[in-house]
Amino acid sequence: MKVEPKTLPGFMELFPNEQLEFDRIKNIIIDTYKEYGYYGLDTPVIELSSVLLAKAGGETEKQIYRFEKGENDLSLRFDLTVPLAKYVASRYNELVFPFKRYQVGKVFRGERNQKGRYREFYQCDIDVIGDEVLSLKYDSEMPSIIYDIFKKLNIGDFVIRINNRKILSGFFESLNFKDKIADILRTIDKIDKIGMNEVNAELNSLGLNDEQISKTLKLISSKDINEIKDLCDNELFITGINELESVINDLELRGLDKDNYMVDFTIARGLDYYTGTVYETMLKEYPSLGSICSGGRYDNLAEFYTDKKLPGVGISIGLTRLFFQLMEAKIINPSEKCTSDVIIVPMTENYSYIYKVFNILKSNNLKVNICFSDKGFKQKLRYAERLNNKYAIIIGDDEVAKNEVAIKNLKEFSQESVSLDNLSNYKFN
Amino acid sequence: MKVEPKTLPGFMELFPNEQLEFDRIKNIIIDTYKEYGYYGLDTPVIELSSVLLAKAGGETEKQIYRFEKGENDLSLRFDLTVPLAKYVASRYNELVFPFKRYQVGKVFRGERNQKGRYREFYQCDIDVIGDEVLSLKYDSEMPSIIYDIFKKLNIGDFVIRINNRKILSGFFESLNFKDKIADILRTIDKIDKIGMNEVNAELNSLGLNDEQISKTLKLISSKDINEIKDLCDNELFITGINELESVINDLELRGLDKDNYMVDFTIARGLDYYTGTVYETMLKEYPSLGSICSGGRYDNLAEFYTDKKLPGVGISIGLTRLFFQLMEAKIINPSEKCTSDVIIVPMTENYSYIYKVFNILKSNNLKVNICFSDKGFKQKLRYAERLNNKYAIIIGDDEVAKNEVAIKNLKEFSQESVSLDNLSNYKFN
Repeated sequence: MKVEPKTLPGFMELFPNEQLEFDRIKNIIIDTYKEYGYYGLDTPVIELSSVLLAKAGGETEKQIYRFEKGENDLSLRFDLTVPLAKYVASRYNELVFPFKRYQVGKVFRGERNQKGRYREFYQCDIDVIGDEVLSLKYDSEMPSIIYDIFKKLNIGDFVIRINNRKILSGFFESLNFKDKIADILRTIDKIDKIGMNEVNAELNSLGLNDEQISKTLKLISSKDINEIKDLCDNELFITGINELESVINDLELRGLDKDNYMVDFTIARGLDYYTGTVYETMLKEYPSLGSICSGGRYDNLAEFYTDKKLPGVGISIGLTRLFFQLMEAKIINPSEKCTSDVIIVPMTENYSYIYKVFNILKSNNLKVNICFSDKGFKQKLRYAERLNNKYAIIIGDDEVAKNEVAIKNLKEFSQESVSLDNLSNYKFN
Repeated sequence: MKVEPKTLPGFMELFPNEQLEFDRIKNIIIDTYKEYGYYGLDTPVIELSSVLLAKAGGETEKQIYRFEKGENDLSLRFDLTVPLAKYVASRYNELVFPFKRYQVGKVFRGERNQKGRYREFYQCDIDVIGDEVLSLKYDSEMPSIIYDIFKKLNIGDFVIRINNRKILSGFFESLNFKDKIADILRTIDKIDKIGMNEVNAELNSLGLNDEQISKTLKLISSKDINEIKDLCDNELFITGINELESVINDLELRGLDKDNYMVDFTIARGLDYYTGTVYETMLKEYPSLGSICSGGRYDNLAEFYTDKKLPGVGISIGLTRLFFQLMEAKIINPSEKCTSDVIIVPMTENYSYIYKVFNILKSNNLKVNICFSDKGFKQKLRYAERLNNKYAIIIGDDEVAKNEVAIKNLKEFSQESVSLDNLSNYKFN
């Protein structure tokens, strides 16, 4: 009796070529995070439920993978923010602040399985945490990092939309709708889904009069700080305006292309978490993908673990979801990927010579596969082709006798002989 | 009420500097695996218990993290071999054989917590799987990969000890102890722990007479194939001898330093899994660490999932355990690690200039940190020092006026002025 070797739905497992492409993207993200001097962290997948659920409730509790082992009530991490909070709180005395860390790892949520929903998926997070204070300059470092990543990924035109929660909060405070801010922001957050008219109607039903709605719509439809600066004189609103202006100015000084960022007063993000700058990132040609990279500023990372005030700012890329979206939209094409730069096809028993060639190629920093097999020439070449190799290096007794190799370009169906002395200078590309 | 932000015992979580060193080692392993043309795989952490436990029993069942979610009986993977077997069996028709894959990831075993035992730890596996057949040449590719890794890691002299299970099996078959091979091999496997005399006694109690024990001891104390070639004429024994000889010859042809590998007829490894070549790797100056990298040849990877015969050969590095051993033995020293090549210390409000410097350094492929803070010069420098930076680039209004920067070497307490035009050519090292 055989067991069916199946993988659970909602759990990512890729074909080898797809995995190559996934890892390429993941490494671009990690490398960019590192370029800015961030530490890479790696926290446990399993934590005490009491630690992971210190803050959570509602949906999170339902989704979490929770179980007992021995005497312990354990859970799998459902994001990378709670583990960061735990880490910083427990190592407060040893860490150097501002503490800059990235973490790329799997998180687990037992959602109902539906298209685009994963139960085990990669998050790529980057955050900087201050001790009591954190310079606003870090709020412009985040979009700068996002910008570098999406330029390198080369997956099409993107725009980072930036807002400051204080603008929205201060604005509605001034309209005396402070106690309904959550509802109003939730309504505004739906603007991409339900449209301006529907938002208008919902705001009305929340009690805003026509003048207030008109002012609100002026705010959220504007893409220019100067246009809305005088919309109200609430202190929080003005602070938000100043902070946003400072971040936007900084991005210009950093040299970011203005086509790739903009202010957008509709961006609200999570309701009780973010307190200042907030970000979303869209692919211009694929708005239906939604935000592919989001984040913002928060006042207090670890309030459930410590009395220390630890403000932070961070962004996150949901890589698993993004990867499948990019595949589906055919923005990336994993089928052309290959594990090696060249493959050696031995057609002689002179392995001393084969390994000599292998060592020459390896010392030139090439990834080198060798096709070990008792099969014939055609089958070996077929192996090289199925692995998607561009270059096969064929070594038969003739080549050994002449101290050379035959380099076959499998994409262009050409072949040439190259002496071992010249092999180091051969351009494989 | 605050929740104590604690991490479970047996679960690795490192300080930032330690993590930098851990990742450096992990990346050397991954990069070397890739140099040989292996695919990187990434299978789910959570699988169906029926799939993961198709083969397992006994100790594995007790250690595994197993729980229910909805209607599913789930488990966390306890190694990377069972997921590989599942992967290959379920994608047999799409994969290209020989299928070369590495996987570096966490596995989970709820062992009793004791020194050196981890419940969540990294395995770094590499295997090549054939369809029906697999060339013996791959048995020499494995030690070649191990060799490259440990040369690059530069953690001291190492030796790869190689044997072939057929030699031991054939030998004891010829002594008519075929049915006690498991017991005898288990006894021999303990030779490093209990010594030759104790092994002698145990073999005697298993029923071997003095002549048989003397022959056995001759075999397992020899380090030379030629010395033991004529010890018996059993067919399996002779096949093992020929295979081992072929692997050893191949390593010489590959150019491996002979100090770093040897035959060792005491190496048996897992009792019912390996069927041919077996490997262990020791640090010569730290034999107490035991084998830091082991593996071997097996006949059938996925017999619990498929009728296809899938022979393979592979090795594994238990990285979490190795890392802590290396730290404890002070072979590695994470405290000197730094996240960035340089850190910019702004002492001016001219951020246009600061970002100009930042962009120059980044375009030279340097990892660049910027110390954003309202604090004074001394505190900013202290930040740079605590992060273990070697180079601080100080930019005040004077530097801006002169179109230069001040580069301070924090390790050598020296400082020099460098014009922006020359900054690209400055050697940070």
